[in-house]
Amino acid sequence: MKALEKVLRKIEPLDERAIAAARARQDTLTKPLGSLGRLEELSVKLSGIKGEPIPKIHHKAIVTMAADHGVALEGVSAYPREVTAQMVLNFLRGGAAINVLARHIGARVIFVDMGVASEIEPHPALISRKIAYGTGDMAKGPAMSREQAIEAIEVGIEIVEQEIKKGLDIVGTGDMGIGNTTPSSAITAAITGEPVARVTGRGTGLDDKQLAHKVEVIEKVLKVNRPRADDALDVLSKVGGFEIGGLCGVILGAAAHHIPVVIDGFISGAAALIAVGLSPRVKDYLIASHCSVEIGHKAILKYLDLKPILDLEMRLGEGTGAALGISIAEAAAKILSEMATFAEAGVSQSD
Amino acid sequence: MKALEKVLRKIEPLDERAIAAARARQDTLTKPLGSLGRLEELSVKLSGIKGEPIPKIHHKAIVTMAADHGVALEGVSAYPREVTAQMVLNFLRGGAAINVLARHIGARVIFVDMGVASEIEPHPALISRKIAYGTGDMAKGPAMSREQAIEAIEVGIEIVEQEIKKGLDIVGTGDMGIGNTTPSSAITAAITGEPVARVTGRGTGLDDKQLAHKVEVIEKVLKVNRPRADDALDVLSKVGGFEIGGLCGVILGAAAHHIPVVIDGFISGAAALIAVGLSPRVKDYLIASHCSVEIGHKAILKYLDLKPILDLEMRLGEGTGAALGISIAEAAAKILSEMATFAEAGVSQSD
Repeated sequence: MKALEKVLRKIEPLDERAIAAARARQDTLTKPLGSLGRLEELSVKLSGIKGEPIPKIHHKAIVTMAADHGVALEGVSAYPREVTAQMVLNFLRGGAAINVLARHIGARVIFVDMGVASEIEPHPALISRKIAYGTGDMAKGPAMSREQAIEAIEVGIEIVEQEIKKGLDIVGTGDMGIGNTTPSSAITAAITGEPVARVTGRGTGLDDKQLAHKVEVIEKVLKVNRPRADDALDVLSKVGGFEIGGLCGVILGAAAHHIPVVIDGFISGAAALIAVGLSPRVKDYLIASHCSVEIGHKAILKYLDLKPILDLEMRLGEGTGAALGISIAEAAAKILSEMATFAEAGVSQSD
Repeated sequence: MKALEKVLRKIEPLDERAIAAARARQDTLTKPLGSLGRLEELSVKLSGIKGEPIPKIHHKAIVTMAADHGVALEGVSAYPREVTAQMVLNFLRGGAAINVLARHIGARVIFVDMGVASEIEPHPALISRKIAYGTGDMAKGPAMSREQAIEAIEVGIEIVEQEIKKGLDIVGTGDMGIGNTTPSSAITAAITGEPVARVTGRGTGLDDKQLAHKVEVIEKVLKVNRPRADDALDVLSKVGGFEIGGLCGVILGAAAHHIPVVIDGFISGAAALIAVGLSPRVKDYLIASHCSVEIGHKAILKYLDLKPILDLEMRLGEGTGAALGISIAEAAAKILSEMATFAEAGVSQSD
């Protein structure tokens, strides 16, 4: 618990002076006032997070964490459980969507095994930090112990701190785990108070009947475990997942070091709910990359008061939305650093 | 008129076989069916335009055309007219938003003087093809002659064909011209039939009173000129602009050579309306990059049945939205070409 407590104490409010300086600079650049809309807002937010009037984004990384879920045995996913490990191998070979999009935006990806249910051969591109071989079936009891929840978060903190040592200006979150929309829906319902049916979607492709079954399972999960909304560690341990805990740690660790966090879709959003539950200040360090098709994601964005950059009807996870969002955030930062001012360019201002 | 007629005859329907092949391939890639949403749609559209099941996007360019407008003398803009030429110089020095965003996505930009009202010193990065020193004041008569409208379009065709010779896989459109939301609103009202007030916005930053004046001016423009909605050349010549005509030529020339065209915001949209008026098939070659804050842009997107990729509340022009859109389109193409299939990766498919 020491690493977690240390990080929670370290998370500061945004730098208001940097924000004011960035906003003032935007208004001197050669364009009509405010004409770059949300790019301008984003650049100002990056300034506040990084504490720099002209934030630079050189080192970009996405942390994609994988784990399995005991609840997958309850028939809540269209895919068999072994796909989690198979997809990790696909990541390591570079053939998954996140590999393609991370290359496209020039970001490195850190793949972490937080608790895949089978053995994965060691590989130089994989960090193996299994908390256990999948969570317990939360339809029958807690997904993990409170100690495991803390351990998962602290692994996330440790991993992002290692990346910060290598150079890191912005980080995205990503996930892989067959069945993991189920804990994400359970977390969302527990924390936001929304009814389960309103935060539960089709995941990788359930039909109407399977979706109704998934809602029933999640209602049972909440009844069996009774997570306490005001205790984020209780929620994570009872109805969470190891990758969700790990991503929560990545978010907290990044915020503690003034690194902006671009959250991906629904599963990353659930991790953000836990992180904000542990430290409300973390909210200001979050950038929502996109709005997922998974309906629970909208409830998360509303609860966290975040407006997504993109809405491309995606629902893949892995950090794919985060990758595209990072590229837009980088563009926003470059506007602030690379554009000429009216004075520099000798351009007349508005009447 | 020969070059224009030749290009109009050359524009073909999309390649349905390539579309079917791309769609089939998307369904074999290691991700849940349809889970990349609009990225998948975009990749399929690129296939149909380029006639390739796996379209490659290496060479990216944005054509940014500048011109002045006689109607600017009627007090329809917040900026003085000399800003058009000043901003062209800013482009040539690399300090404008379009320079920053084009560098960010790895695209070249071709700057064209289609009719700036003052002399601009020759510069290796500027193509000087002035049709005239600004259009006529269309509140008093036609903006240009029908011959000048054709000339502007043919310059656009010639420029994009030169770029195709250098290697071009996708092209974006961009504009610069103080006062050019006024002809764009006039074109939109004339072609879509919407009332002027519903397609006229604040441009670079008008207040309520100035906006009301702008609407009055555009109503007068339409009354004085009576452009015929079914004759796009008539609309362009009476209430258009030289950069709008040039961009219309870029769009037509690109479509004739199976090059996808990523249109920027409102002014590029007006050029697209003229292009589609000349050849309805062109519509299929258009990708709408973003939704501008300028309200007339929504009417154009609706009329052309285009769904924008981004909605970042931008209203700058220059091709800035197109730049961000091109990067997303490139990402979509890479998904199709770089991702592993289920068979290649040995990943189990859904039940």
